Amino acid sequence: MKKEFQKGDLLYEGKGKKVYQVLSEPDKVILFFKDDLTAYQGRKKGSFDGKGAVCRNISSLIFRYLKKEGIPVHWIEDLGPKESLCLKTNILPLEVVIRNKLAGSTAKRLGFEEGIPIREALLEFYYKKDELDDPFISEEQIKKLNLIKDSSLLPQVRKKAFLINEKLKSFFLESGLELIDFKMEFGLFKQDLLLADDISPDSCRIWDSQTGYRLDKDRFRRGWDGLETAYKTIETKLYERWGKVFKQKINL
Amino acid sequence: MKKEFQKGDLLYEGKGKKVYQVLSEPDKVILFFKDDLTAYQGRKKGSFDGKGAVCRNISSLIFRYLKKEGIPVHWIEDLGPKESLCLKTNILPLEVVIRNKLAGSTAKRLGFEEGIPIREALLEFYYKKDELDDPFISEEQIKKLNLIKDSSLLPQVRKKAFLINEKLKSFFLESGLELIDFKMEFGLFKQDLLLADDISPDSCRIWDSQTGYRLDKDRFRRGWDGLETAYKTIETKLYERWGKVFKQKINL
Repeated sequence: MKKEFQKGDLLYEGKGKKVYQVLSEPDKVILFFKDDLTAYQGRKKGSFDGKGAVCRNISSLIFRYLKKEGIPVHWIEDLGPKESLCLKTNILPLEVVIRNKLAGSTAKRLGFEEGIPIREALLEFYYKKDELDDPFISEEQIKKLNLIKDSSLLPQVRKKAFLINEKLKSFFLESGLELIDFKMEFGLFKQDLLLADDISPDSCRIWDSQTGYRLDKDRFRRGWDGLETAYKTIETKLYERWGKVFKQKINL
Repeated sequence: MKKEFQKGDLLYEGKGKKVYQVLSEPDKVILFFKDDLTAYQGRKKGSFDGKGAVCRNISSLIFRYLKKEGIPVHWIEDLGPKESLCLKTNILPLEVVIRNKLAGSTAKRLGFEEGIPIREALLEFYYKKDELDDPFISEEQIKKLNLIKDSSLLPQVRKKAFLINEKLKSFFLESGLELIDFKMEFGLFKQDLLLADDISPDSCRIWDSQTGYRLDKDRFRRGWDGLETAYKTIETKLYERWGKVFKQKINL
């Protein structure tokens, strides 16, 4: 009989997720994916029924794939339609963004047209502080202003982030999708640096690789229609290609 | 008889300076220091009579000092009360900022109290683009987005910037002044990377080293009184200590 995991204290509630302690398992947490959607530091709010489940399904398939490819991740297994069981890590207060093409805030700040390819993937750090709107920071600022406890982890963060990008670019491309940019968070579990948080169309830019049609949260940010269909298109395309590999169907 | 240099075309007009071509001397320009003062990307404007002359005097003494210390600079000599003759360089589109204590925009963006010492000087790059409000950028963005023509110059820019900071910290401290942060621009003259532009209380934070009283453009930015006296205090203190070394008096 499959083990039951029971939710304990709510440890954290973010814009799109809740994190619960697992009862009697101090090393484990449950990630609950909300139907809510926010943009512009919470100033724009929305939701659609089933968004949490779609994002959980996409994120879990990504984590299964990365785990199989040898990347250490916090994800353990899925629970019900909107939850995942994960290792409890000490999250570094950094958002690690990789961009394969320029779009969004960086394109705007630096005066570039959206969709311009970059000759080599670009890594950016943002300082995770809601009250400061997660400002863009340099690696030198992280080190010299002690923004994380142990900045000797940074080369490892960089290396893992670029490797994950290489793996995910193919993962998406084989499903007819182009990974434009995405955000990662890393956490320490004992001595190991794990990919943590989630990876979903809430925190990626994913375009149809043939048409360039945008399938991610930019539809919501910019007030375009078709958000729900877009998220479900990603889910369907990924499961068509990868579901059989992992013996997973949509709507577990 | 001293050679006369005549102004030709106005090549550039910035917030606090004008740059003129020197007639019949293609390699030289004249920097004219305006009495105008702006802040917040030009949204706040002010001026005081003689500001241009005070800033020219401060900047020139700094450039004389750095030149004597072996730093290649564009400054050649002063002309009249508000002008300097300089080599004409190809300016890199970067503002190079060194911070010894955190203050201003970075303190605010990252949620630090002003005046906190940093264990090691912090270097920041800003992309010189008025229409984008000179955004903060990472070295990786400069390289991968080709923001300057030749990014192999960056290690040299860094090395010079830190060396100039070490020299200027003593230069100010021996005059009873503390260099909190300052902005540099560099330009190429043939193959040589020169310190260009100017260094004045318009683009530095300088505090009284005993009392912490602020003697720079923050008085204007924040609407505090005593701006003119503050600039003249810096000029007086620097010339008391260094004027005799360079046989220079205020008001040349």
